[in-house]
Amino acid sequence: MIANKSQRIGVIDLGSNTARLVILNAVPGYAYRLEDEIREVVRLREGMTAAGLSDTAVARALFTLRLFKRFCDSYPVDLIIPTATSAVRDAANGPAFLQTVSQEIGLNLQVLDGEREAYYGTLGVLNEVELGNGYVLDIGGGSAQVSKVRSNRYQEGSSVPLGALALSQQFVHTDPVEPAEVVAMQQYLAQQLDTIPWLTKKQSKPHRHLVGLGGTIRNLAAIEAARQSYPLNTLHGFVLSRDSVAETVQLLQQLPVAERRQIAGLNRDRADIIFAGALVLAEVMDRLRVESMTISKNGLREGLFFEHFWQHLAYPVVANVRRFSVLNLARVYNYQKAHASHVRYLATRLFNQLAPLHGYGPAERELLDAAAMLHDLGTIISYDDHHKHSQTLIVNSGLPGFSPRETALVALLTRYHRKGRPTADLFTSLLTEADPIILLRLAAILRLAEFLERGRNANVDDVTAVWDDTTLRLTLIADEYPAVELWEAERNAASLMAVAFERQFVVESTAVPDIQFGL
Amino acid sequence: MIANKSQRIGVIDLGSNTARLVILNAVPGYAYRLEDEIREVVRLREGMTAAGLSDTAVARALFTLRLFKRFCDSYPVDLIIPTATSAVRDAANGPAFLQTVSQEIGLNLQVLDGEREAYYGTLGVLNEVELGNGYVLDIGGGSAQVSKVRSNRYQEGSSVPLGALALSQQFVHTDPVEPAEVVAMQQYLAQQLDTIPWLTKKQSKPHRHLVGLGGTIRNLAAIEAARQSYPLNTLHGFVLSRDSVAETVQLLQQLPVAERRQIAGLNRDRADIIFAGALVLAEVMDRLRVESMTISKNGLREGLFFEHFWQHLAYPVVANVRRFSVLNLARVYNYQKAHASHVRYLATRLFNQLAPLHGYGPAERELLDAAAMLHDLGTIISYDDHHKHSQTLIVNSGLPGFSPRETALVALLTRYHRKGRPTADLFTSLLTEADPIILLRLAAILRLAEFLERGRNANVDDVTAVWDDTTLRLTLIADEYPAVELWEAERNAASLMAVAFERQFVVESTAVPDIQFGL
Repeated sequence: MIANKSQRIGVIDLGSNTARLVILNAVPGYAYRLEDEIREVVRLREGMTAAGLSDTAVARALFTLRLFKRFCDSYPVDLIIPTATSAVRDAANGPAFLQTVSQEIGLNLQVLDGEREAYYGTLGVLNEVELGNGYVLDIGGGSAQVSKVRSNRYQEGSSVPLGALALSQQFVHTDPVEPAEVVAMQQYLAQQLDTIPWLTKKQSKPHRHLVGLGGTIRNLAAIEAARQSYPLNTLHGFVLSRDSVAETVQLLQQLPVAERRQIAGLNRDRADIIFAGALVLAEVMDRLRVESMTISKNGLREGLFFEHFWQHLAYPVVANVRRFSVLNLARVYNYQKAHASHVRYLATRLFNQLAPLHGYGPAERELLDAAAMLHDLGTIISYDDHHKHSQTLIVNSGLPGFSPRETALVALLTRYHRKGRPTADLFTSLLTEADPIILLRLAAILRLAEFLERGRNANVDDVTAVWDDTTLRLTLIADEYPAVELWEAERNAASLMAVAFERQFVVESTAVPDIQFGL
Repeated sequence: MIANKSQRIGVIDLGSNTARLVILNAVPGYAYRLEDEIREVVRLREGMTAAGLSDTAVARALFTLRLFKRFCDSYPVDLIIPTATSAVRDAANGPAFLQTVSQEIGLNLQVLDGEREAYYGTLGVLNEVELGNGYVLDIGGGSAQVSKVRSNRYQEGSSVPLGALALSQQFVHTDPVEPAEVVAMQQYLAQQLDTIPWLTKKQSKPHRHLVGLGGTIRNLAAIEAARQSYPLNTLHGFVLSRDSVAETVQLLQQLPVAERRQIAGLNRDRADIIFAGALVLAEVMDRLRVESMTISKNGLREGLFFEHFWQHLAYPVVANVRRFSVLNLARVYNYQKAHASHVRYLATRLFNQLAPLHGYGPAERELLDAAAMLHDLGTIISYDDHHKHSQTLIVNSGLPGFSPRETALVALLTRYHRKGRPTADLFTSLLTEADPIILLRLAAILRLAEFLERGRNANVDDVTAVWDDTTLRLTLIADEYPAVELWEAERNAASLMAVAFERQFVVESTAVPDIQFGL
């Protein structure tokens, strides 16, 4: 990260159930990272009547917003983007509340209408998932937003009063929930979804792409992730199946709230309201005829942030999510650009020339490219074992836009860029049967590229690979005699290349050696 | 690390068995970290005769040194400190070799005599271990150095021709080694050690402090670490017992080289020569009557580096190893000094006032102090789960000067500075029976201090703790009404404080609240 150009941006999101402040450290248009976060369960909608928000709820909200404001002031934060959603929007005393907040705390909350809420949530998603055409579902505390995306742009969206907290308060009065309550909730839910023209009946085209966001959906994904011992430490790109949602709905329906708290992955704060949210999700998946949904970690707050971060773009969505997420990670961890770029260049040259031997295409090349850019990431932790640290960092942060399988492969490639016989054991559940051999070959190429650039001075300008049935021969074209590179490639990369491409591996140079190198 | 003040220092060490180049990134007197390392098994002593180094060995050495030089040039490195030890020192053609290296490669190797080699190894050790009075043993490839340390200063030292490679070449000609060979080696060893006056007979005072360094000794420690599933990822401060050395000697004596390679922890490159080194170590421990030795990761190369790093000191050894190792880690990972310092201040105030309740003293306070300085270290990896990352970083890098037990406790304190019920399970083998309760109490204090400084603006100037049998009451003295701090402390730290000190925990403020805070 370029320290002297970075700024802190705080985004406040006062929802019906939860109030959140995220502080992002960013160089607009260049890179960003999450720096701090506070989350308070405010339950602003609790006790709301025709007269509006209750006094207790208002007091809780004021307290929390004051806390957020002080927090921002003491960091300090350069820009605060404070917003509120459905509870304030729907409350009769909303305007009075806003005035109090402005006068007493100095925060001018922007109240998002349903359509803006849908729009910003979608912006957050589109900066994380390559969606193309599809749908976005955001289940909040007070409302749920469904949006339609065409050509990777928000097209239209609606907000319906189907938030997990709002629904629970309206329909759930027994514990565990009674069948009659479930039926009533489902009828109401259907009526509300019927108000959205493009959701009224089951879509004719199945298998459209659906992305989900918001605490309820993320929590349903976390439950499934715990169920399958999911090996990544992030839910970026996690795929939640229709079957899993159905299983969780059934489980939640049987259990009283106290017992729900024992479910692995379930957030205790949500134990009472998550069932209603799960019903909404199940119904929307049903209507869209999708078998699964992709989880987005981004949402409303990130959408608001990206409007600022991509302010120089006509539309605040990055053109290539995958490319940017690799660059963002590299930049945040202060990668050595010249070295990484040259390793990438050599790896790509090797990949392309060896194509007749491996038969891979653009998809595999992109993984190799990402791994080349990120291979030394772990040096931020320590030089010792930095290859292992690179894997840890990627598995922790995830690679937005890449699937879990792809993320695992990129992480594994960085893991094996220096030494070790590549094994995919840790991530078998995410990989296909062909992946271990893909890993082996790409790791061999990356390792070779790394050791051809061990001198870190881009001495090797290009490589030429030729082979027959028994031998793969690589010729280096270099500025000066590549003594270091030949030696390192032979010692550290040759045996893996031989295994990966089932041939003897020989490396030589076109340059004339200095006389002293006649070892 | 202060990027614009940092320099790269390369230290080259051409030993009898191995040639090493380490590149350190450092701001002299402030902080340093290892940036890169190359290690080549040169076996310079192999084939050495009365005429000197063999032609093949010279060619190998020249090749490797040229490689190192190019590597340094391309980084680039600001200062190279190139040295050679016993093989060049002892060789009849040593001077001619040095001239070739100077003319053809441009490296002016400084040949260290035995005493200088002992001195620099000891300098490395003294910057890592608080030794006071004791002994330092360095077993290299060609020679071994024994040094005496008094008042934390190198006093005297000797080099004897007892390197692992030299001894093996001289005495071991069968595989597995024959008893007669072992006897001959032990006789020679005894004669050589008898030349050092203060090592001639068994020392009268037992239990002196012995520190060991060098590849052979570190590798013997790695074997023991694998045997006991040692839970730290670094050998800094590892304690190797006399019994463990005896066990390894016996094991190695029985096994042929090929089978030794199966021993967990053993470095394959050393399988043939490690037995001789183990014999030397066993004999020295015996003569000094020590039951165990402490492992130093630092040695000759670091000693040479520290002479530069501490150039402004009259004697290039830091006054307080422990304090500096905490600071160095904090600085390398760009800690937020103002926040860390204020958390440390509040934690210390709490610790001191609560002394009648916990009964701990300076030793525990120092652990709390270190954990306060390092608690946010993990944010360099990511904000999410940064408490876990802090633990990982400390367990990886170690804390020179702290024992393994202390390192584990500091790591655990950072792990639990935000949430979770402290548990020491991972490190039980390093801890005492009393440690889980120490961990609980110190973690409670650290967490409270952290949340009292959650606003990151040092709002809380001081704290006053009073208690009776049922209640522990904390009063905050603050600049302005500490709404954030009270709220955060109550929500996030109060329950752990209550458990740790077996009392209700109440926190309040002397400052008058703004009228709006009347929640």
